[in-house]
Amino acid sequence: MLRPLSRAVFQYQSPPRIISYASIVGEKEGEGPLAACFDQIETDPHFGQKTWEQAESMMQRRTISLALDKSNLTENDLACVCAGDLMNQCIGSTYGLLPLRIPMLGIYGACSTMAEGILTASLLAESGVGEYTAAVTSSHFSTAERQFRFPLAYGGQRPPTAQWTCTASGAVILAQSDGVSHGVEVCGCCIGTMQDLGVTDANNMGAAMAPAAADTIVRYLQATGTQPSSFDAIITGDLGLIGSELLCDLVMKQGYDIAPVHHDCGAMMFDPKTQDTHAGGSGCGCSASVLCGYFLPKLENKTIRRILFTATGALMSPTASQQGESIPGIAHLVHLESR
Amino acid sequence: MLRPLSRAVFQYQSPPRIISYASIVGEKEGEGPLAACFDQIETDPHFGQKTWEQAESMMQRRTISLALDKSNLTENDLACVCAGDLMNQCIGSTYGLLPLRIPMLGIYGACSTMAEGILTASLLAESGVGEYTAAVTSSHFSTAERQFRFPLAYGGQRPPTAQWTCTASGAVILAQSDGVSHGVEVCGCCIGTMQDLGVTDANNMGAAMAPAAADTIVRYLQATGTQPSSFDAIITGDLGLIGSELLCDLVMKQGYDIAPVHHDCGAMMFDPKTQDTHAGGSGCGCSASVLCGYFLPKLENKTIRRILFTATGALMSPTASQQGESIPGIAHLVHLESR
Repeated sequence: MLRPLSRAVFQYQSPPRIISYASIVGEKEGEGPLAACFDQIETDPHFGQKTWEQAESMMQRRTISLALDKSNLTENDLACVCAGDLMNQCIGSTYGLLPLRIPMLGIYGACSTMAEGILTASLLAESGVGEYTAAVTSSHFSTAERQFRFPLAYGGQRPPTAQWTCTASGAVILAQSDGVSHGVEVCGCCIGTMQDLGVTDANNMGAAMAPAAADTIVRYLQATGTQPSSFDAIITGDLGLIGSELLCDLVMKQGYDIAPVHHDCGAMMFDPKTQDTHAGGSGCGCSASVLCGYFLPKLENKTIRRILFTATGALMSPTASQQGESIPGIAHLVHLESR
Repeated sequence: MLRPLSRAVFQYQSPPRIISYASIVGEKEGEGPLAACFDQIETDPHFGQKTWEQAESMMQRRTISLALDKSNLTENDLACVCAGDLMNQCIGSTYGLLPLRIPMLGIYGACSTMAEGILTASLLAESGVGEYTAAVTSSHFSTAERQFRFPLAYGGQRPPTAQWTCTASGAVILAQSDGVSHGVEVCGCCIGTMQDLGVTDANNMGAAMAPAAADTIVRYLQATGTQPSSFDAIITGDLGLIGSELLCDLVMKQGYDIAPVHHDCGAMMFDPKTQDTHAGGSGCGCSASVLCGYFLPKLENKTIRRILFTATGALMSPTASQQGESIPGIAHLVHLESR
């Protein structure tokens, strides 16, 4: 059962556990500061496929398969997978997971997908739908760039606030708490509420998403009666350099200083001085791969013990932007612990 | 807690209840055989907004608000809403629900969204995330037609296998079982597995989705040891006239004759003789509005007692179709009872 703490904030009485995880990234991500963390760096941006979309699907399939392999499980052991991505109609997950024939709940949270997936998959695991569940997501620079911005060959100029969509994927396998003593516990969650402060610039996603991250983090801290210092890391998905600064300011206004423990996966992924990535990395796969490549191993070997993983999503579409709509953000949070 | 019966098939020990629901449709749907069932028929296809996309968002907002009104609840009473739609990046739900400030899990299941939403929202209700949860979805002929097929003004010819995307929305409010004695019980669920028999014709969605519906229905019947005759109705989402026939054949091959109790929301929505809708209605809002307008009232007044609601989704995108991909289908099932 859940212990509801406040609206859409809950903790598990018997926390499900992340018993396996995997991360695969592209070449550029593999040249960044986190290169040593990822399971695989694929230098072929097509992942052996004909189109960018097929490449992203293949990346997602390889990532969840690797996470299964690491735990000596097969796709037939999973009761359900929660999956989604940025492509229209989430075709990365559809065609990526199709051959694996796993019961699937499709989710859409833009770049918050990994947190939403872990939240939903942990709820399913804890409810007893089956022994094992999974969450997976991905993003690919070339599928996102041409869908959300410009044709790749056009060579559009990028403003300094722009972020670089990561070619990356992350997957986790969760187990019911009974009978499993290893792995990282999913202790609690906070379901995000959309926030919209009126940002309309699709090249400044960090600013659009920071209020959602602030809202979710503050709601969780308040509901649990914890302080930022209670955690080894409070991690956001892909606010990037500009959004991260804004987040710390917004949270400080509500009385919490998260700056000493805040890390943003988008800001960590690239070296902005040498990699020409402006405000940092973005995309569903950014936070998913950094969680699975960098933070989960540290939790597993107990270098760190308690983190809040808060992936943020910008919920606009090109059509909405063309119609002058602002960009609503959402952030889902999962509280992970290694005891 | 859940009682898992087989892979991704489960029943609730304390079934959550659908305590309220609402349906709003457009003018053409309001001229069909089910006209008398819907809560509202909106004759302005723009729903008072400037764009089709804003119209769909407004329809979704009005539908969930109406479902809340009927149960004397407000949006602040909801612990969470599960919402999604067909538009790229699910902007119908984003901009529709933004002003209501409800914690939201975005879902993507194409036209299976209503079943996926009820499944996820019932799981949240039963887990105790809060007293009330909700599921809502929508579709709009004009947003879908120009996104998936042709510009509206182009007047493209439609083959006889084509379906007509409904302008429609449906919403349900669910409550935890404790302390509620009215409403319709969500007794059990089956999470869909993608099925793909190689259909590549985006104008023949019924055929693409029928195998998924067959798989899900047969899995549920087998896991629960029930027969089609155990139910007053086995309902599919929007297979239309062609897909429905195929479904009955596929299920019969596995030893179940569902024809006497099978109803398809897409086949029910329009009169093909007078409304020029070819193989029937489709879209997330089709099954959602027929469930909320036609079947749930019959369950509530006990005209019928037990149904299986199996909404089906075609998970392709225009990009995938252009790249020659086949159309994977998925179907999620919820078992609803009125005792």
